[in-house]
Amino acid sequence: MRTGIYPGSFDPVTLGHIDMIKRASAMFDRLIVAVLINADKKPAFSVDERMELLRISLDDIGLNNVEIDSFDGLLADYVAKKNAGAVVRGLRAMSDFEYEFQMALTNKKLNPNMETVFFTSRSEYMYLSSGAVRQVAALGGDITGFVPEIIKDKVIEKFVH
Amino acid sequence: MRTGIYPGSFDPVTLGHIDMIKRASAMFDRLIVAVLINADKKPAFSVDERMELLRISLDDIGLNNVEIDSFDGLLADYVAKKNAGAVVRGLRAMSDFEYEFQMALTNKKLNPNMETVFFTSRSEYMYLSSGAVRQVAALGGDITGFVPEIIKDKVIEKFVH
Amino acid sequence: MRTGIYPGSFDPVTLGHIDMIKRASAMFDRLIVAVLINADKKPAFSVDERMELLRISLDDIGLNNVEIDSFDGLLADYVAKKNAGAVVRGLRAMSDFEYEFQMALTNKKLNPNMETVFFTSRSEYMYLSSGAVRQVAALGGDITGFVPEIIKDKVIEKFVH
Amino acid sequence: MRTGIYPGSFDPVTLGHIDMIKRASAMFDRLIVAVLINADKKPAFSVDERMELLRISLDDIGLNNVEIDSFDGLLADYVAKKNAGAVVRGLRAMSDFEYEFQMALTNKKLNPNMETVFFTSRSEYMYLSSGAVRQVAALGGDITGFVPEIIKDKVIEKFVH
Amino acid sequence: MRTGIYPGSFDPVTLGHIDMIKRASAMFDRLIVAVLINADKKPAFSVDERMELLRISLDDIGLNNVEIDSFDGLLADYVAKKNAGAVVRGLRAMSDFEYEFQMALTNKKLNPNMETVFFTSRSEYMYLSSGAVRQVAALGGDITGFVPEIIKDKVIEKFVH
Amino acid sequence: MRTGIYPGSFDPVTLGHIDMIKRASAMFDRLIVAVLINADKKPAFSVDERMELLRISLDDIGLNNVEIDSFDGLLADYVAKKNAGAVVRGLRAMSDFEYEFQMALTNKKLNPNMETVFFTSRSEYMYLSSGAVRQVAALGGDITGFVPEIIKDKVIEKFVH
Repeated sequence: MRTGIYPGSFDPVTLGHIDMIKRASAMFDRLIVAVLINADKKPAFSVDERMELLRISLDDIGLNNVEIDSFDGLLADYVAKKNAGAVVRGLRAMSDFEYEFQMALTNKKLNPNMETVFFTSRSEYMYLSSGAVRQVAALGGDITGFVPEIIKDKVIEKFVH
Repeated sequence: MRTGIYPGSFDPVTLGHIDMIKRASAMFDRLIVAVLINADKKPAFSVDERMELLRISLDDIGLNNVEIDSFDGLLADYVAKKNAGAVVRGLRAMSDFEYEFQMALTNKKLNPNMETVFFTSRSEYMYLSSGAVRQVAALGGDITGFVPEIIKDKVIEKFVH
Repeated sequence: MRTGIYPGSFDPVTLGHIDMIKRASAMFDRLIVAVLINADKKPAFSVDERMELLRISLDDIGLNNVEIDSFDGLLADYVAKKNAGAVVRGLRAMSDFEYEFQMALTNKKLNPNMETVFFTSRSEYMYLSSGAVRQVAALGGDITGFVPEIIKDKVIEKFVH
Repeated sequence: MRTGIYPGSFDPVTLGHIDMIKRASAMFDRLIVAVLINADKKPAFSVDERMELLRISLDDIGLNNVEIDSFDGLLADYVAKKNAGAVVRGLRAMSDFEYEFQMALTNKKLNPNMETVFFTSRSEYMYLSSGAVRQVAALGGDITGFVPEIIKDKVIEKFVH
Repeated sequence: MRTGIYPGSFDPVTLGHIDMIKRASAMFDRLIVAVLINADKKPAFSVDERMELLRISLDDIGLNNVEIDSFDGLLADYVAKKNAGAVVRGLRAMSDFEYEFQMALTNKKLNPNMETVFFTSRSEYMYLSSGAVRQVAALGGDITGFVPEIIKDKVIEKFVH
Repeated sequence: MRTGIYPGSFDPVTLGHIDMIKRASAMFDRLIVAVLINADKKPAFSVDERMELLRISLDDIGLNNVEIDSFDGLLADYVAKKNAGAVVRGLRAMSDFEYEFQMALTNKKLNPNMETVFFTSRSEYMYLSSGAVRQVAALGGDITGFVPEIIKDKVIEKFVH
């Protein structure tokens, strides 16, 4: 059984992430969407909230080989623990590419059996990031078409002061 | 009447910005230089100071279709309110390009009528940014050729402790 | 009166070009779409054919301030002759950016009054180039969504042997 | 059964390609290495020679789920015909990235079910391309470490005049 | 006598830095490795610790024309004070390139006699940065092959809580 | 004695090359400007003409540690034969960077003792390439400020039909 891991902050999940999950889940027998618990950074949503938003969004589309999990520590260790064959990452732009490339090489150094495969964003999601969602929501803008419709109100709520 | 908006932090205005304003003002009947009030970031100069430095610099060269304003909230909303046809941005380098590209696409998503046009920096200003000005001034370096001569002392003064 | 020039090979015109023409025509009183007569390169379509495909495509959408012309020699000279305020170019990707940047600086060197303004491609046309159209058409692929519907058959015809 | 396709010119196969094939073959039940018959370009090695060099190199490492094939026409059509779930491509550098990105988007436009996944080169093969092999071999340089040892003499032979 | 300066944060020194020092020391009669005292940023290691780690690492390989120093203020001023002919910098990736390019141009503006020369990273160190070392060490990962063996324990120690 | 080699096509030499030669000659005891004899490409100027244009341009500025030579075959072999410590290359833009990076790594693979050092273009020459000179000259444009004044007429002459 081939297991893939799609790690990220998902702060919050966007339509770009959902598209990536749909496509990546077709490549593996089992896909784990793994929320990074980053003790240093201050995410807008807690780990529990981020997992909940993922759960609601994924329940809505019904992919039966996708699990949601969270992890801290080294990704290379998490991948080994889960006995996963590959990590999945999305590429949107040049700057993604550089960072992802460096991470993939670092991870291969830490765990030579770890493989990273990349999907490119669909062109309509190329502009889309969790950061853009937070920024637009914080300024009271409309995030329709940025996040799944079913979680839109929950995301907006977070930014109403 | 065609109105263009040139938004930015202008913290402080540089000779690169001034060159861009001169060139962009020839493309529109009216150009609004719009200082972004960014509540989150800590600018070195207050909004009032940044507008004042722009005013002094622009008075010095006498462009009669340029106005100075400030705004907060979404740029897309500000553009709609001002009934502007286009936003003007300068491109210096690759990393500018990526960021600007993403912003242009996000803004078009938020306001489909909003257009962003780009000018390239003149080659002598390609190295120049407000950040570089602040860094050099803070270390006591010479900022001649970085900012308009007429505001040089005011900029230096800010960084003398 | 502000005149803009949108130069290119248009070999053949794509939906990306048409989108750029629509948007650029709103920025100028008059926009000249100028087909480059390149004696060295072997275009797939003759200058007359390229102008004809542009004409059919533009008649179909009815922009009354757009003209079609052709030129050879230096773009800087053509811009001066037409008394145009600016050249318009589209940016799709990094490699575009570098080339365009270099051309804009070279042209400014040759004609200091010449201005180049850039528009970014809409995300759905970011993959699209005349070269891709020719390649797909030559291999018998479907170019729907690549070129205006009204010229599709004429483009395909060229590649049927 | 998941089928992946690794298309390329393989003119000639390099150690970078071999590394990619090893890694990609672990991701699929069946991996087809598909040599592009490009009627326009003049490859140094014929399709038969390129397939033969691949065969010798792959026999040497014994991967039992890898097949070698050739194709012309649209990759999107070939992928559909082979009922493959994904195309595999390697990324070495920025310029690869741009080209590959554009191809992936074009192919998705031509065949919406077609998926492209990317692997990054191992750092020691990042400099390596078939073009570099041909250039070094043509100038009488040593291609040890560029191509599989078992085909080295055959590659050199081609460039001895 | 030609003096070169290799400035950096070295927080901590990596095997990539050491490789750069070895290669750059062959280009100059005297090479000064200059630790930047950056009052604003919070480095993981103090200036003294960073110089100590450099000293231990360099003693281990015995380069007799290399000195270790620290500086604050403008690099352009430090270079003038040391009467150095050139500053040496390593390039790993695109984003390095942009930043380094901008710094080189700014420094040339501040001190027209100042020259910056670049070396490219060896491919095996292309993934490697002080930031990656800190991140991996902080998460309890193995930093073998990231920093000189002789300082490995001292680096790890810093991140044990 | 430290010998540096500055290889290139110099078809023809530009002011950007001359600037690079001046700056690089200060870094070495002896700098060899080495014209690449490229049997495959069709240069506009013959090897003899390219060396002559370099000679005239360099005589004009009087650098007494610079020699002009030509070479074919592998650069790595030429460097070894000349017992040179380093190859010098200029970087203007991203695409330069990628190509140069790949060449530097390939050359280090072919000759582990071979070092490549990079200088960045001055900002006013960043747009400048031999290709741009040829293109502008061929279209009858003014190449003042592109090539040394003393060779301008000779360059123009080549393109008058």
